[in-house]
Formats: sequence, C-alpha cells, structure tokens
Amino acid sequence: MNSETGQASSPDWLEQVAWNANGLIPVIAQDVASRDILMLAWMNRAALSASVERGEAVYWSRSRAKLWHKGETSGNVQVIVDIRLDCDNDALLLLVEQQGNIACHTGRRSCFFQQLDTSQGRPRGWHSVDPILKDPAEMYGK
Amino acid sequence: MNSETGQASSPDWLEQVAWNANGLIPVIAQDVASRDILMLAWMNRAALSASVERGEAVYWSRSRAKLWHKGETSGNVQVIVDIRLDCDNDALLLLVEQQGNIACHTGRRSCFFQQLDTSQGRPRGWHSVDPILKDPAEMYGK
Repeated sequence: MNSETGQASSPDWLEQVAWNANGLIPVIAQDVASRDILMLAWMNRAALSASVERGEAVYWSRSRAKLWHKGETSGNVQVIVDIRLDCDNDALLLLVEQQGNIACHTGRRSCFFQQLDTSQGRPRGWHSVDPILKDPAEMYGK
Repeated sequence: MNSETGQASSPDWLEQVAWNANGLIPVIAQDVASRDILMLAWMNRAALSASVERGEAVYWSRSRAKLWHKGETSGNVQVIVDIRLDCDNDALLLLVEQQGNIACHTGRRSCFFQQLDTSQGRPRGWHSVDPILKDPAEMYGK
C-alpha cells in the first residue's frame, strides 16, 4: 500500500518508468545477434511485468486493446536477453533472440522495410526493399 | 491544394506517415557502423521535412515544443544514411553516422544505459551500466 494514497502500488522499478498519459511506453526490439531493429511496439505496466516474468516480449496491442504475447500465433516469440531504459525513462529497448527469424506480420525479418527514396536529391516516396521470407498465410494460417 | 478540402496539402510521402493525434511519430536512431541504438525521439512533419532536406536529424522537442537540430549545441550531429518506415507507417528508423560518438546528453554513447537488474530471478531496479565518455558540462560548454 502507498501510505499517501492508500492505494496498492506497483514496485519501484515499474514506477520509475515515465509512462505516458495513456500509461504506455514505446519499446524498441533489437535482435541481439544481427543487431537489426525488428520492430517498435508499446507496453503498459502489465505488459512489462509479464515480459519480465516470462522472459519473452509481451506488448500492449493498441489496436486490439489487450496484452499481446508476441509470437503466440506465429511461433515467432522474442526471448529477452536484456532490457534497457533510456535517460528520460520514457523509452525501452529490448535485446531479443527472435525465434523463426521473422518479426513482421508481413513475413519480413524487420518491420522497417519501407525505405525513403531520395534519388535525384529529393524525397520520392517509400519503397519496400526487404524480402518476404515467409507467406503470412502460412505464418498465421489455416 | 487538396481538391476535397481546399487546403494546401503536404507531399504524398509525408502524408503516408501515420502521424499520431499530436502530429508526431517516434523515431529510432541507430548508428550505421556499430549498429548500437542511440536514442528514441519524435518528429512532426516539419522535423521530418527538415531532416530530409539537411541530411541530418532534426527532431521535435516535446519538452521545449520546438524543432531541435540534434547536435546544434554539442556538435554531436547525426548524419542520415537511411530512413525507414515500419509496416504500420507509425514508427521511423534512422540509420545515422553519429558525430562525436556521443548521442546522449549525459555524455554517454547511447541513451539506453539503464539496465534492468534481474539477478536472483526477479526485477531489482534500473542500473546505469555504460560509461560517461565526456563531461556534459564540457559538451554544452563553458
């Protein structure tokens, strides 16, 4: 219990995080071996607690408004090796072992596959430049 | 002009970005050589346009509510090598050459220097684990 508010409080390490107005924090997932950036997702207190407890990334799905154990359907679980908080306490970095070598729901390794084309000296649009490694229908499928 | 709204519109490549309710997008800066994650910051349309134009990272400072040319005081400019947008169009990744080898205002290489200590099987708090390379007083000077 928090002696000032009378409410049950979460642990200090969880309260040191500067959660935003919606109780969320952005989380970068980086592959510990290749050092590729795999994705950016979001966590709330429950997601971060669950991630630490399981040793696997559990995010907060803003579109579905529920906890999302990454890889629960595809099998592409992210095993957590290291958790870092930034200098302002408002961003997290997970170093992970990406099971299945695919983080993106499109079947690509990384979600950051759209590159800004600046040929001829000016921005000309976003082009998909990374290969699809696995058919999403097969990943999520049947 | 946008024919439907009658308002001046920004270029398609800028409108394809899924700006949040505050007109912002989170941006990961990764060192192109070491592949270290340097920081997470935010951009609005003006910041992204300015970044592309300069070839150097220009963020939106939420605390100061103004454009922030990274390194303008410290000299630790981030030269942009590649700009990537993720699958949901709501996160950016910059691959950069980090001038001065220091991204963090604390004088550390990366802003992600606080590690969650999970020794003895449970979370025990955030510990600073990376060295300060340069005294911030010297960086921001005098």
